[in-house]
Amino acid sequence: MNAVIVGIDIGGTNTKYGIVSDSGEVLYQNKIPTQEHSDFNDFVIRLTDAIKNGLEQLPGDNQILAVGIGAPNGNVYRGTIEHAPNLPWKGIVPLVDRVKEILKVPVMVTNDANAAAMGEMIYGGAKDMNDFIVITLGTGLGSGIVCNGDLVYGYDGFAAELGHVTINPNGRHCGCGRKGCLETYVSATGIKRTVYKLLADFMEDSELRGISFDDLSTKMITESAHRGDIVAKAAYEYTGKILGSKLADTVAHTNPEAIFLFGGLSLAGDLIFEPTIRHMEANLMPIYKGKVKILPSQLQNQSAPILGASSLVSKYLTKKPSIKA
Amino acid sequence: MNAVIVGIDIGGTNTKYGIVSDSGEVLYQNKIPTQEHSDFNDFVIRLTDAIKNGLEQLPGDNQILAVGIGAPNGNVYRGTIEHAPNLPWKGIVPLVDRVKEILKVPVMVTNDANAAAMGEMIYGGAKDMNDFIVITLGTGLGSGIVCNGDLVYGYDGFAAELGHVTINPNGRHCGCGRKGCLETYVSATGIKRTVYKLLADFMEDSELRGISFDDLSTKMITESAHRGDIVAKAAYEYTGKILGSKLADTVAHTNPEAIFLFGGLSLAGDLIFEPTIRHMEANLMPIYKGKVKILPSQLQNQSAPILGASSLVSKYLTKKPSIKA
Repeated sequence: MNAVIVGIDIGGTNTKYGIVSDSGEVLYQNKIPTQEHSDFNDFVIRLTDAIKNGLEQLPGDNQILAVGIGAPNGNVYRGTIEHAPNLPWKGIVPLVDRVKEILKVPVMVTNDANAAAMGEMIYGGAKDMNDFIVITLGTGLGSGIVCNGDLVYGYDGFAAELGHVTINPNGRHCGCGRKGCLETYVSATGIKRTVYKLLADFMEDSELRGISFDDLSTKMITESAHRGDIVAKAAYEYTGKILGSKLADTVAHTNPEAIFLFGGLSLAGDLIFEPTIRHMEANLMPIYKGKVKILPSQLQNQSAPILGASSLVSKYLTKKPSIKA
Repeated sequence: MNAVIVGIDIGGTNTKYGIVSDSGEVLYQNKIPTQEHSDFNDFVIRLTDAIKNGLEQLPGDNQILAVGIGAPNGNVYRGTIEHAPNLPWKGIVPLVDRVKEILKVPVMVTNDANAAAMGEMIYGGAKDMNDFIVITLGTGLGSGIVCNGDLVYGYDGFAAELGHVTINPNGRHCGCGRKGCLETYVSATGIKRTVYKLLADFMEDSELRGISFDDLSTKMITESAHRGDIVAKAAYEYTGKILGSKLADTVAHTNPEAIFLFGGLSLAGDLIFEPTIRHMEANLMPIYKGKVKILPSQLQNQSAPILGASSLVSKYLTKKPSIKA
C-alpha cells in the first residue's frame, strides 16, 4: 500500500489535479475545465471522479492520505472559496466539506498563491528559508508570505493580498471594486494597460500600435522589448518601478530573506527583474539595502501548482498549524 | 528563593528597568539617564549595578532568571543595538554579550516596539489574539507584528519598520535618510510638522500661530483641538487620514485581528482613532471591511515598556523561538 497526496489547483479556466508521492514526485496529473461547471456540486463530483480515475491508472495499491487545494480566495480556516471573481460559483462555497464527504480524507484549501509559497518552501528555491515571500504574476497579482517558517494566513484567513495594496487611490479601476491596486499595474493585465497608457501618452513609433488590447499578450510585449521596441521596454521599466517601490514597503513589514517572482511576467527575466531590483533598492531604508534577494521561482513548470497544493497538506501532516475551524 | 525577570527599556533620554514577578507584577522599578553615558561599557556597568541594587531592596531571596531588553534598533538574532540614531553609541554595540557577562543569565534584546507587542500579548489587550499589530506613536513610529502567535522578527531581525513605509517619495525628510516615510507624518514630530504645514498653507486663525516649533507639543495640539481650534483639528484629521490609508496596506499584508495604538498621539482618543478608522475602512478591500479593530493599547502606563521587555523573555522561556545566533 502506497500513501499518496492529491494536489489540486483550481483556476478560472482549468482545474489541474495531480497525485503526488511522499517524495514530491508527481505520479499522475490531468485537468478538467472549471468554467463548464456552473453548478458547484457538479464540479466537485466531476473532480473527485477524475481523481479516483487517476488513482486507478497508477500501478500498485495506492491510498490517498490527504488532499491539498489551492484556489482563488480559498479560506484555510473555513474550508471555503469566498467571492472569487473569476470562478463560476458566486458567494461562499463549502469546498472542503464537499470533497471530504466524497473522498473521506483530510482536505485543506488556501489561496493559490499561498499554495505556491508552500511549494517553493518544500520543493523550490526556499527550501532553507524561514522568511520569504512568493509573488505570483498572472492575470492578477497574488502573494504568499512565510514568517518564522509558517505561512501567514492572518486572523480571517485572507493575509497576503499584496495585489491590493494601493499605488494611487485615484488610479486604475480594479476588479476588487477599488482603484489603483498594485495588480492593476503589475500583472499580465497590468502591463497591457501600461502599454496602452504609454501609446496614449507618447508619440514614439511602436510595433504594438498595430495590436488591439484584446489581442495583446505579455509574451508579445516581451518579444517586442527583446527586439528593442521602445514602448515595450518602457512598459517593463514602469512595471518594475511600481513593483520595486512597493516591495520596499513589503520588506519594511516582514523583512524577508528573499522574494520569489512566479508565473507569466516573471518569465521575462531581466526585463522585469532588473528594474524591480533597482527600484526596490532605491526605496529601501538603509538597514535593508543589499540584503533582500529578488529571485525567480524554481517551480516554473506545469506541476508547480499541484506540488504547491500537495505541499500545503504535507506540511500540515508533519506540523499542524493552528487552524481555528 | 523567588525567581524574577528583569525588563529593561532603553530610550534616548532614560533607560527604565524593572524587576518583575512570575505573574507579571512589577516589584521594583527605576531609571538611569541614557544620554549621560557616551561610553557604552560605562552604561552597561551603571545599568547592571542599578539592577543589582534594586534586587537588594526587595524582601526575601530573589534570583534573576533572565533579562529582556527593548531598545531602538535592537536585533534579536545578534543581541546588538545597530545604528540607533537617538542613542549615544554609534555603530553596532554588543548589548546582550555585555549584560550576560555581568549578570550571568539569559539575555534577549529586540526593538522597543516588538517588546510593546509582546507586552500587549501577555499582559494587555491581545491576550487571546494570535494575529495583531502594535503601533507605537512616540517621537517616531514603531511597530511590532505578531502572526500565528509569534513576533515577526524577519530574516535579519529588522521586520516591522512600519514607520518607514513610503507615503510620498518626494515628501518630508526622514531621520533614516529617505523622504516621505510614514513617521514623518504620523508621530509626535509628524503632527507638529503637519500643524506647521497647515499654518503655512491656510489663513485661518489658530491659537497655534503664537507657538514656536520647538515649544509645540502633541499635548498642546490635542488641547487646542478639544477647544475647537480649526488647525489643530485639521492636523489630527490629516494624521488619521495618512495612518488609516497606510494601515489598509498593512492589513493586506498580515490580515490582523486588531491594530493597537500605543503612546503619545494615541492618548488623543477620538481625535486620532476616528479619522484613522474611517480612512482605513475607506481604503480596505471588501473582504477586510468592518473586520479589523483599531484599539488603544491596554498598557498605557509607566510600567508598560518594562512589562513588554520582560514578557519578551517570559515567552522565550516557555516557548523558544528559532533564534539563529
